[in-house]
Amino acid sequence: MAQELKDLTKRAVNYSQWYNDLVVKADLAEQSAVRGCMVIKPYGYAIWEKIQRQLDDMFKATGVQNAYFPLLIPKSFLSKEAEHVEGFAKECAVVTHHRLMNDPNGKGVVVDPDARLEEELIIRPTSETIIWNTYRNWINSYRDLPLLVNQWANVMRWEMRTRLFLRTAEFLWQEGHTAHATSEEAEAKAREMLDVYAEFAEKFMALPVVKGVKTANERFAGAVETYTIEAMMQDGKALQSGTSHFLGQNFAKAFDVKFINKDNQLDYVWATSWGVSTRLMGALIMTHSDDNGLVLPPKLAPIQVVIVPVYRNLDQLREVDAVVEPIVNRLRGMGISVKYDNADNKRPGFKFADYELKGVPVRLVLGARDIANGTIEVMRRDTLEKSEAQLAGIEEHVAALLDEIQQNIYDKAYGFREKMTFKVDTWEEFKDRVEKGGFVLAHWDGTTETEEKIKDETKATIRCIPLDGEPEEGKCIYTGRPSHRRVIFARNY
Amino acid sequence: MAQELKDLTKRAVNYSQWYNDLVVKADLAEQSAVRGCMVIKPYGYAIWEKIQRQLDDMFKATGVQNAYFPLLIPKSFLSKEAEHVEGFAKECAVVTHHRLMNDPNGKGVVVDPDARLEEELIIRPTSETIIWNTYRNWINSYRDLPLLVNQWANVMRWEMRTRLFLRTAEFLWQEGHTAHATSEEAEAKAREMLDVYAEFAEKFMALPVVKGVKTANERFAGAVETYTIEAMMQDGKALQSGTSHFLGQNFAKAFDVKFINKDNQLDYVWATSWGVSTRLMGALIMTHSDDNGLVLPPKLAPIQVVIVPVYRNLDQLREVDAVVEPIVNRLRGMGISVKYDNADNKRPGFKFADYELKGVPVRLVLGARDIANGTIEVMRRDTLEKSEAQLAGIEEHVAALLDEIQQNIYDKAYGFREKMTFKVDTWEEFKDRVEKGGFVLAHWDGTTETEEKIKDETKATIRCIPLDGEPEEGKCIYTGRPSHRRVIFARNY
Repeated sequence: MAQELKDLTKRAVNYSQWYNDLVVKADLAEQSAVRGCMVIKPYGYAIWEKIQRQLDDMFKATGVQNAYFPLLIPKSFLSKEAEHVEGFAKECAVVTHHRLMNDPNGKGVVVDPDARLEEELIIRPTSETIIWNTYRNWINSYRDLPLLVNQWANVMRWEMRTRLFLRTAEFLWQEGHTAHATSEEAEAKAREMLDVYAEFAEKFMALPVVKGVKTANERFAGAVETYTIEAMMQDGKALQSGTSHFLGQNFAKAFDVKFINKDNQLDYVWATSWGVSTRLMGALIMTHSDDNGLVLPPKLAPIQVVIVPVYRNLDQLREVDAVVEPIVNRLRGMGISVKYDNADNKRPGFKFADYELKGVPVRLVLGARDIANGTIEVMRRDTLEKSEAQLAGIEEHVAALLDEIQQNIYDKAYGFREKMTFKVDTWEEFKDRVEKGGFVLAHWDGTTETEEKIKDETKATIRCIPLDGEPEEGKCIYTGRPSHRRVIFARNY
Repeated sequence: MAQELKDLTKRAVNYSQWYNDLVVKADLAEQSAVRGCMVIKPYGYAIWEKIQRQLDDMFKATGVQNAYFPLLIPKSFLSKEAEHVEGFAKECAVVTHHRLMNDPNGKGVVVDPDARLEEELIIRPTSETIIWNTYRNWINSYRDLPLLVNQWANVMRWEMRTRLFLRTAEFLWQEGHTAHATSEEAEAKAREMLDVYAEFAEKFMALPVVKGVKTANERFAGAVETYTIEAMMQDGKALQSGTSHFLGQNFAKAFDVKFINKDNQLDYVWATSWGVSTRLMGALIMTHSDDNGLVLPPKLAPIQVVIVPVYRNLDQLREVDAVVEPIVNRLRGMGISVKYDNADNKRPGFKFADYELKGVPVRLVLGARDIANGTIEVMRRDTLEKSEAQLAGIEEHVAALLDEIQQNIYDKAYGFREKMTFKVDTWEEFKDRVEKGGFVLAHWDGTTETEEKIKDETKATIRCIPLDGEPEEGKCIYTGRPSHRRVIFARNY
């Protein structure tokens, strides 16, 4: 067994430490020399590239085009939208100078005091302000609308407590920014992109999500309405996995973006913005993985199938090589990514543990005896079950197994969430349930005051008001005041 | 004729203004509110995405994997490699604070003086320092080598005079950083990546390039050897289009990156780095375009074929629609990107001018009379020639024409470069030739002193010592001292 695997903390011992260990040991990411900023290692980045590629295709299918806007935002832009500045202007990286000089005392380089910027620049925490400042020149008439633009970019928020992927100072994301002629159209676009996120999460990440709307208190700074997809991690905590905002005319008003509508009247433009980030990597890792390491959904696994030879001498290895080569070619021809690891400097047991740690969905093991029998050993990562399959037709067997694994890990995560979702009607039960983890469906009186008191007393926040929730008369779990539907409470990442 | 096109400055009138006009009018990019930083608009970004995708595939075919390193670099890192700091520590964006606060005087937000960073952070101008600081923990033994990593990222250099794509404060690029056990292997990798760049430039951008090595004076700060591909623009000036550096052990020594070699000895690691940027967009635009607008190589054109209907009434339009639909489907089936522009709110003449401005390689025009005749009008953007083709089999005709255009614009650019490349042996002729533009092949005595004097007197720099140059005895054009080969002098972007 590989050393890395032995050192992996068990989930039951310390779930949080298990996650931190796993991210590092599976070669996904690590802390950098810059506080709160991570290095995404090649294996982790390969997963992110698969996420990116798939989302990008899905965005483009809805008519969205990519563009690129500046990294730096003039400080004054942040103040233009009143709520936005409260949410984003506080903890951010501020560029004040544009030159270094040799230290007059000979100690390396120092900031050149003569190179102070007239106006400080902020590294974008999100780009609504600079983008709407740009849109002012792009939009004149309803004929210029809708404008459907996305950018893939790095952003920075000066977080005090960081965790790899889940909360880092710098992170990678996409941010879509659309402009529309009517409120209805903008609101529909915000909902459409939420649906894209949910579809991506469920079909590709095998991550069941609840679609909902945020309370006023949890809304994006500057939004009229924030939609969210919320997922449940294995410790019962919620993870907000993507948000889509209907921004009304707030940014159009702040940046004076008007258009001539079909009735020949000047009006402010309606907006949405929506984003997912490298935080999705955290959701992916925490939802499916186990004490042996990562479990990756086949649709996002950089290596879907690994083939390991077992042999006593190099003659046997050459025999296995010859049998494996056409299998590799046929699998690749079917669009399946496969690695044949016949490196002679590591024992099979080491390889097994390593690919388990890295979450490769299917492992095939082949030796001289298997060849004689016309069979091959198949191990599926999700259940760790081993079975013997016929060598003939192994490619179709593997393809079907990958689909089965994709479905199985979704079903497992869905079953866990269902088991861990509770309707609660008394305050005592509420506190107890929140403490034990899971989604708590409870009545709430609709006020921010109550929401904050509940948070103070239990650390549970309202994750969302589910979009598919049934209206139901009831009494607020905290104040007893009337309520018309249940909302989801949970502790969260 | 569209208004935009009428306003496009002619190349003969003012080449520089023609370029600036074209970038903006063809919707490629524009200046942003932040000095020197550009907005890359959707049409321009679509071309960049094609460049990225193709290069990324070519890198991966050589075994390179992508990763991501922090945007910010501790100031002290820059000082660790002596030459590097001279080249990169001067004009750069410096982050000094991590928080804003409400202005006590109520005027927006101001920098919080209490949130000063202990050590200033620099927005990466290039990432050798932070990457080699990271590699120290990734490399222990020759078994960890080679390490072949690339990142796609934004970088920032505080340029005083900027031009869209050619020289901007923030730009997008890729930077490859590889680590090797031997000097020979690293040097070979630097050359291999130069070949990848040259192949990409010639096959995809239709851009003929000269491969060469830089003089000591023009070398990357911290490199032992810098390889370059140099292209010639239509005004006869050179544009450095990509560089690949053999870094020796300089960064390994600066960041203490050692490994145990096969002889069980500790040694410093050998390095390369190599990059191309959004500057390639500038090369692409300037090499092929004309007074009517962009000319794009088919292999990088977001829209390869546009089909425009001509009609007198909506019945005719429906008739054309019906004939075009299967053509569009067949073209897409062949992997050709096609747009059918049957929007009824713009005249065909406007559409023609607009797609010419945007450089769409092939335009098809179809009307009722064409349908009756079984023909279709074909216009190729590179020569602006119109011809009549048979409707039956038009897809194969278009596919062949796209290949022909790709080859033709390469040949045209190659012919121009050959015509504008001169062997020069006297100082008078040298000065005259440099003034008129082009590549000047001349002898040089090999000293930085002479190189700088020539630059001071003529504004010509040594673009490179061509890799395929024949040894030839001669006398330095400036000092008359002995020389063993000709180098390329030119004015440059």
